[in-house]
Amino acid sequence: MESPVRIVGIDPGLRRTGWGIVETMGNSLRFVASGTITSDAKCDLASRLCQLHEGLSGIIHTHRPDEAAVEQTFVNKDAVATLKLGQARGVALLVPALAGLPVAEYAPNAVKKAVIGVGHGEKKQIHMMVKVLMPKATFDTDDAADAIAIAICHTHHRQSAQARAAFAGR
Amino acid sequence: MESPVRIVGIDPGLRRTGWGIVETMGNSLRFVASGTITSDAKCDLASRLCQLHEGLSGIIHTHRPDEAAVEQTFVNKDAVATLKLGQARGVALLVPALAGLPVAEYAPNAVKKAVIGVGHGEKKQIHMMVKVLMPKATFDTDDAADAIAIAICHTHHRQSAQARAAFAGR
Repeated sequence: MESPVRIVGIDPGLRRTGWGIVETMGNSLRFVASGTITSDAKCDLASRLCQLHEGLSGIIHTHRPDEAAVEQTFVNKDAVATLKLGQARGVALLVPALAGLPVAEYAPNAVKKAVIGVGHGEKKQIHMMVKVLMPKATFDTDDAADAIAIAICHTHHRQSAQARAAFAGR
Repeated sequence: MESPVRIVGIDPGLRRTGWGIVETMGNSLRFVASGTITSDAKCDLASRLCQLHEGLSGIIHTHRPDEAAVEQTFVNKDAVATLKLGQARGVALLVPALAGLPVAEYAPNAVKKAVIGVGHGEKKQIHMMVKVLMPKATFDTDDAADAIAIAICHTHHRQSAQARAAFAGR
């Protein structure tokens, strides 16, 4: 019998990192939990990265996901902001990988396509569709809602990959 | 009696992260070890960050430094390169911080000033001065030499900080 697969979606950021956990089995999708890890802007960078590490490690320890999906950072013209995000993202990728989870990465437009159906759209639309796809989902911040969307995106992609593998194995 | 303080300098990079360990006591400076951690470009990003994590954790475990100093990333116009470096740098800051070490950061021109005497200069000059300041120093790559220079830079700055504190405490 097929057993449910638990996925943690992560929307990394130095100030706020959103996380969302969903469970998928066949075509069903179930919301498990979501939240936001914040780092203290008054602390130095290394301490803030430790805070993110501690938060993410705690979530993985508590919810025991099987796979992780992390949003690909939006690279913009502000190099200092890109660097900050890169540092937080390094920790967001590292923590699940250290726990032995396969870590997938998705570009923001892939995430939008998975939940809205098109590769563009506003944050509000993402949140609305998260609620439509999983009425029981709750989220405290935009980042947590985005993280749930990333997890949903991963459930779609892993299913297509499985279908392709099954077809190839016929 | 004053006891020696052991410092690990880190020059972070996704492909190659240089590290160098020096010991300082009063005005004396002693080379301990240096090397380069490489990540496998054929692996996915999360696995490469794990490789950096493992390498740095091993060095801290083996050499037991008291303090860490990490080079501030040179932010350039290539946003993709900045992001890559940021991710590696996140891990380079996180690992010593998780081990309970205070982590200082120095801009490249501060490092040059500490070893060459001026805030500019070529890589070759840095390597030459590392050899002058610590004749026994060995390094396998430019990154390892830079890491030793970062550790030397930190010994200067921490001494000035101590002197200022002692003067203020009179």
